[in-house]
Amino acid sequence: MPELLLAEHGGNLFAARKVYPEAPEPWLDLSTGVNPYAYPFAHPPMEGFTRLPEPEELRALEAAAATAYRAPAAAEVVAAPGTQAIVNWLPHLLPARRVGILGVTYCEHARCWATSGADLTVVEDLSGLEDKDVAIVVNPNNPDGRLIAAADLHALAAVLCKHGGLLIIDEAFVEFLEPGASAVPDTAESGIVVLRSFGKTYGLPGLRLGFAIAAKPVAENLRVALGPWPVSGAAIAIGSTALTDAEWLAATRARLHAGANALDKMLAAAGFAPVGGSPLFRLVRHEDAQGWFERLARAGILVRRFEARPAWLRFGITGSDASRMRLRKALGLELR
Amino acid sequence: MPELLLAEHGGNLFAARKVYPEAPEPWLDLSTGVNPYAYPFAHPPMEGFTRLPEPEELRALEAAAATAYRAPAAAEVVAAPGTQAIVNWLPHLLPARRVGILGVTYCEHARCWATSGADLTVVEDLSGLEDKDVAIVVNPNNPDGRLIAAADLHALAAVLCKHGGLLIIDEAFVEFLEPGASAVPDTAESGIVVLRSFGKTYGLPGLRLGFAIAAKPVAENLRVALGPWPVSGAAIAIGSTALTDAEWLAATRARLHAGANALDKMLAAAGFAPVGGSPLFRLVRHEDAQGWFERLARAGILVRRFEARPAWLRFGITGSDASRMRLRKALGLELR
Repeated sequence: MPELLLAEHGGNLFAARKVYPEAPEPWLDLSTGVNPYAYPFAHPPMEGFTRLPEPEELRALEAAAATAYRAPAAAEVVAAPGTQAIVNWLPHLLPARRVGILGVTYCEHARCWATSGADLTVVEDLSGLEDKDVAIVVNPNNPDGRLIAAADLHALAAVLCKHGGLLIIDEAFVEFLEPGASAVPDTAESGIVVLRSFGKTYGLPGLRLGFAIAAKPVAENLRVALGPWPVSGAAIAIGSTALTDAEWLAATRARLHAGANALDKMLAAAGFAPVGGSPLFRLVRHEDAQGWFERLARAGILVRRFEARPAWLRFGITGSDASRMRLRKALGLELR
Repeated sequence: MPELLLAEHGGNLFAARKVYPEAPEPWLDLSTGVNPYAYPFAHPPMEGFTRLPEPEELRALEAAAATAYRAPAAAEVVAAPGTQAIVNWLPHLLPARRVGILGVTYCEHARCWATSGADLTVVEDLSGLEDKDVAIVVNPNNPDGRLIAAADLHALAAVLCKHGGLLIIDEAFVEFLEPGASAVPDTAESGIVVLRSFGKTYGLPGLRLGFAIAAKPVAENLRVALGPWPVSGAAIAIGSTALTDAEWLAATRARLHAGANALDKMLAAAGFAPVGGSPLFRLVRHEDAQGWFERLARAGILVRRFEARPAWLRFGITGSDASRMRLRKALGLELR
């Protein structure tokens, strides 16, 4: 079912500039699901660059993440240079004959499992994952925001556990939902691995920082695979500060909520029908989605389209009044 | 032959502070082989943090590395978040029954291969590697600086190639030797993989940046394993600048040479016998090496000792007159 996997990534301004060389600079990139309100970090001290991070610094970062993500005491938190690095490692660390992914979803899980030798299936319903050795759910899902209740995932993990199966939950976009949306509190049991993306939440994907939360056996294998210095000194310094800043998180949640509401109104006014979304992006449908992609691109605004779903467009949340006005104008809403 | 592998790492000031709480601050850390003259970088633009690195930026970094390391056109250069990440991946990417490592050497290669299921041997002579599927040589070697001529490694790779074997050469410390010391020009042939450490050469190990240079099949497997965003925006920005700065490299080579000469004289005057070294460290022997380790630590100077070689100490090159004077005093040479 290749149509349930959405290939390619957002964020490629180099490619966009080649195709639309006349577009006004700078481009407004709404093609990613990255928080437009980047965490206001201080540059780390020089020692973050001139020294290798020490084990104690890495453990302190992981402890800050454990608190921020509400990890149970029996689970372990493992830092990685982006959750993508974890997605790349898992097929090499988990023995699995039958692997199932809940689609339509982000392509990288399937890409990484495709060469593992396992029998890989993309299913449309959660129940289709019950007989798998490894089941993968992106929650909330990218790109449609489909949200599966933590209780349902917990029940699936219990079924999987009976035959030694494991549930991987990619929570890249969970942060600004209600706390109950996350399965991290369930990771004390050995059947669940949760992935959390620092970069998307804090608007700093270039820092390369993400986490896995899992019970000891899987966490320990991952830690050994990632080696003694998995993340940079800058990621440790900035991550340790940001993850303990509950005030920034609350204020940013409110700003994103307002930004998403404004975006919803604009997209509705321009004739787009809502398909789904998360606090960091909106997925809409339009008969002329490809035409809109082109017109927006000519105005220097990059959004995300999907080869297998030509009527869909995904818009990231605009982060400033200027970018909202620019999008408004490009959507032909200027005079309304 | 576990005594041919040197476990543990240098650079652990947290642990040193616990054992020697009275030592004067700040500590002078001479326990690593990192260049004390860090590349004078500018903080990368905000977009290096707020955006995911684009494929074109990563390719430009790898092209800069290819030029700096004199990679042949037929070889590929693959960036990673530290060469350690490559060391961790290789056992999962290369099928091998018999793996050989030339010892006494750095422990991480053996640690990463130990769980691969291969038959792992640590040998004392290059000829002991000829029948291996994967042979590993650290060149120049850490910690003794033993340097094997590129021609001899080329000959070994040719022997290995006859039965489909591969030679991995870890050139973490090759940079400030003569250019002919590196095997990178030989990587067009498929039997050689070279690892180069950006962090050690440029004094920025906290940035997490290293490279593999190899022919296409191995390079491509490694690139896929590391995923689409292997290194940070800061690593790309700083790395791309530093790798094209031949002037800094030449000036730094001269400073390191002078620093190493000064260190050699101090160590000889204090009664240490030279064992070997590289432009970034010196390995010496002393009957009372353990006593010297303690005395230096109480003076706030951390050097590297080796459990399996209690008479050895490794000293990093001192990077300033102040640190040289501090070491001189701690070595009891003040009044001479």
